[in-house]
Amino acid sequence: MPRVVVDVMPKPEILDPQGKAVHGALPRLGFTGVSDVRQGKRFELEIDGDLTEERLAEVHQMAETLLSNPVIEDFEVHVEGSSDASGRHRA
Amino acid sequence: MPRVVVDVMPKPEILDPQGKAVHGALPRLGFTGVSDVRQGKRFELEIDGDLTEERLAEVHQMAETLLSNPVIEDFEVHVEGSSDASGRHRA
Repeated sequence: MPRVVVDVMPKPEILDPQGKAVHGALPRLGFTGVSDVRQGKRFELEIDGDLTEERLAEVHQMAETLLSNPVIEDFEVHVEGSSDASGRHRA
Repeated sequence: MPRVVVDVMPKPEILDPQGKAVHGALPRLGFTGVSDVRQGKRFELEIDGDLTEERLAEVHQMAETLLSNPVIEDFEVHVEGSSDASGRHRA
């Protein structure tokens, strides 16, 4: 069964308090040398049947309407096991 | 500046209420043909200086101690721009 991954990240210009919290915690745990952390979401979708161009276009629509908030987030759709991501999508 | 990505997903045997909620919302939005959705987290870490084996081992430790809960989550570390992930880490 084909699996499609949707990565959703806060846009670079948007403040990311979760990432900042992680970044602040690292030195307290003895980890140094990390200059920035951004935190986002990862969705793994199991697709019924074959992964056609149309199904992939539908996943793009899901990412745009349900999985991300295009005002503050970018998303990226890629097929698991294939290395060609469709590039980060900026709204 | 090298960027390392840490993907954190709920273990397959662990209930994932966020993924279930997304999965339940899809048909209501007119999307069909998705048999399962799992939701996890994605961290993007900007690393100072060169990305040596030691730095990467340190990122593994961060993933294990701060970024994931190894009791209920698996994580995967990969270097952005390189296709060789280190494989999903199961605790």
